[in-house]
Amino acid sequence: MSLFDNPDEYFMQQALREARAAMAEGEIPVGAVVVSQDSILARCHNNTERLHDVTAHAEMMAITAATEVLGAKYLTDCTLYVTLEPCIMCAGALGWAQIGRIVYGAADPRRGFTQVKGTVLHPKTAVSGGVMAEECEALLKTFFKGKRG
Amino acid sequence: MSLFDNPDEYFMQQALREARAAMAEGEIPVGAVVVSQDSILARCHNNTERLHDVTAHAEMMAITAATEVLGAKYLTDCTLYVTLEPCIMCAGALGWAQIGRIVYGAADPRRGFTQVKGTVLHPKTAVSGGVMAEECEALLKTFFKGKRG
Repeated sequence: MSLFDNPDEYFMQQALREARAAMAEGEIPVGAVVVSQDSILARCHNNTERLHDVTAHAEMMAITAATEVLGAKYLTDCTLYVTLEPCIMCAGALGWAQIGRIVYGAADPRRGFTQVKGTVLHPKTAVSGGVMAEECEALLKTFFKGKRG
Repeated sequence: MSLFDNPDEYFMQQALREARAAMAEGEIPVGAVVVSQDSILARCHNNTERLHDVTAHAEMMAITAATEVLGAKYLTDCTLYVTLEPCIMCAGALGWAQIGRIVYGAADPRRGFTQVKGTVLHPKTAVSGGVMAEECEALLKTFFKGKRG
């Protein structure tokens, strides 16, 4: 999948690559990239185990990294691609960052921010769910199957 | 106010001290401490300006610092004292950390997590609001009055 054919799938592939790197390190396989004008500003994956830090989600790290790269406070012109629907913490952080758009793969019916009613994101943030959802979900299922098997 | 007379006010005073330190640095004056068995594990304040990071709230830093001190993943036996009602991001993080109890000072009717309906905190987390609310709120009002004046 090339950038020109389908940018959303192209960047979700990059996020999936991060998720696979997480899996290889024994982390819950969630990956994220932050994109601005077709350039990737940050590539991150879940690091909760390595950092012993329950807040070290892929999205949190990607927000911090992207704002550092941009030297800006807000990510209004950026899109976050993430393999799993952001949790409420990450959605709150994306709200503070005023991110322009969120694209996620697998839905998270238990912990995802869309379960919560009320203002979480910035009112101008666009959201697209379900991009490459099957691949994103399959990776998570493989991981948890391995853990529980 | 001593620890023995009124532990909640004692520890909120410590959080207020952090909030004042934030104010002195030009940060929005919010402070937090994490306490376990009457000992302070972490003292943090808002650092969004210094770190150019919208996620660097007092609570986020306090969670990360306290888990590092404890060497544990969860803060089930800890209490977080914070001068302002946690936002949805911080509440989500406190949910992941499974914190035992949250005590906050000033309410935040615009950004506070109690505005949002749905599961944000861990079901076992106890919440007490309004401890030294006037002092906590006064500091914030002074800060924003100075900014807007």
